[in-house]
Amino acid sequence: MERVGFVGLGTMGAAMAANLVRAGYPLHVWNRTPGKAGPLVEIGATEAGTLAELVAAVDVVVICVSDTPDVEAVLFGPEGIAAAAREGTLVIDCSTISPRATREFARRLRERGIAMVDAPVSGGSEGAIHATLTIMVGGEPADVERAHAVLAAMGRTITHMGPIGTGQATKAVNQVIICGAYLGVAEGIVLAMRAGLDPDAVVAALNNGAAQSWVLANRSGRMVEDRYPLGFKVALHRKDLAIALDLARESGVSLPVAGLTAQLENGLIAGGHGDEDMSALARAIRELSGM
Amino acid sequence: MERVGFVGLGTMGAAMAANLVRAGYPLHVWNRTPGKAGPLVEIGATEAGTLAELVAAVDVVVICVSDTPDVEAVLFGPEGIAAAAREGTLVIDCSTISPRATREFARRLRERGIAMVDAPVSGGSEGAIHATLTIMVGGEPADVERAHAVLAAMGRTITHMGPIGTGQATKAVNQVIICGAYLGVAEGIVLAMRAGLDPDAVVAALNNGAAQSWVLANRSGRMVEDRYPLGFKVALHRKDLAIALDLARESGVSLPVAGLTAQLENGLIAGGHGDEDMSALARAIRELSGM
Repeated sequence: MERVGFVGLGTMGAAMAANLVRAGYPLHVWNRTPGKAGPLVEIGATEAGTLAELVAAVDVVVICVSDTPDVEAVLFGPEGIAAAAREGTLVIDCSTISPRATREFARRLRERGIAMVDAPVSGGSEGAIHATLTIMVGGEPADVERAHAVLAAMGRTITHMGPIGTGQATKAVNQVIICGAYLGVAEGIVLAMRAGLDPDAVVAALNNGAAQSWVLANRSGRMVEDRYPLGFKVALHRKDLAIALDLARESGVSLPVAGLTAQLENGLIAGGHGDEDMSALARAIRELSGM
Repeated sequence: MERVGFVGLGTMGAAMAANLVRAGYPLHVWNRTPGKAGPLVEIGATEAGTLAELVAAVDVVVICVSDTPDVEAVLFGPEGIAAAAREGTLVIDCSTISPRATREFARRLRERGIAMVDAPVSGGSEGAIHATLTIMVGGEPADVERAHAVLAAMGRTITHMGPIGTGQATKAVNQVIICGAYLGVAEGIVLAMRAGLDPDAVVAALNNGAAQSWVLANRSGRMVEDRYPLGFKVALHRKDLAIALDLARESGVSLPVAGLTAQLENGLIAGGHGDEDMSALARAIRELSGM
């Protein structure tokens, strides 16, 4: 069993790391901001004093941080993985970052004999806790195969999408598709309420037909109540959408609904709602409608 | 068993009428344009020479025509239902028309002792053929109860939404929600293809998570192939969306994605694609992206 290091102990990372401990991996953990490792140490993980110390102690490093610059710092900062890791180390990046930057990072690591796969996840904190995440993986077949057991301890649906960066591109596609899913349901719920319908009865009537979706089944209730507990933060979706819209621009694709969603989310964040669940897009439709 | 008349033998109406014959109803049929009744007469229906003749022979009249003015003509035209029907006749309108006009039509019929429920359907020609339609019903409880056996012969999920017009309003909400569902998937598929991903693998990877929907599972393949067989016609969705956008305006609701969809569908219809399936919204995203 390979020795695994885990970098980034936020809500997602801490839950995913705990599942690696439970699966029996000798786990070393490190977080840029100290004080996050306590619960993991209690169940058997080892806290590293520095990132370089962690890297020296393991064969595989899982990264789960916020954005492209954070991954870059972990990989190429002064005490980072590129400087400290031995040849043959495998990096599994579970962050959601730029596919283009991912390809560049992997190329630079390869020059030092370090392999990398991108493995962004979806499924939220609940999926992280219950190890039911959907994980989209990009990389060389041998590297993806080597990463598989570690990923299988953290998620349920693990799909090798293609070469390095394709996991991130697939995640970007996911974040684009859900723009339409959330806004369509938000518009429908607001119309139903204003038209005097019972919105719960509408959801029950429509959820067997062409309007059926995970969002309609699981998030329309929040839109009706106008309360948006987590879930998946608006601010994080907006961050991911910036990546997707960059990819769209690079790829020469026009995404009108994703673009509209980004603008509505800008307004939600400016209004202090960035920490609400993404179903708060219904708040934006309500506000446009004077509700 | 009540004697039933069926008015409007288009693709949907002919299939629904056939299910009434199979359920054992003595069925009289009539269509404005002649020559549509043959297959129904073969399985046991009686073709009426005129609308007035049909109305005189039955207790319940099901209407399944295209738009608000068509329903108005059937109800209030010179040989129409209001003029020809006896007191106690029940009208079941399965067309998709304006909720406001529906309330007005029901009021005028009530003055002549004729009851009406609105019962628009969703589920397409396949649902009509297999009697698996979703039917959203508005009307007085006693009238809806009386209509139930007839509706149950044509559909599977039958929901009483509230007073007259609420079936139509619920159908409008359905047509709004699917705007987001279709456009979200269309944008995601076009981005996936342009980014070099295998779009079928993307659909398989994402259809367990927050992006899951009937459209992703059942219509993304057409978007990948850029071929849009029926299905549900763009032109019919655009007609229904006009009703929904009128309802939104009357209700004071802003629907940016539904409004965008209407504009994209205008372009598709102008380009000769009005008879394609609604998944042809991907054609619009492709065209915006120079594909």
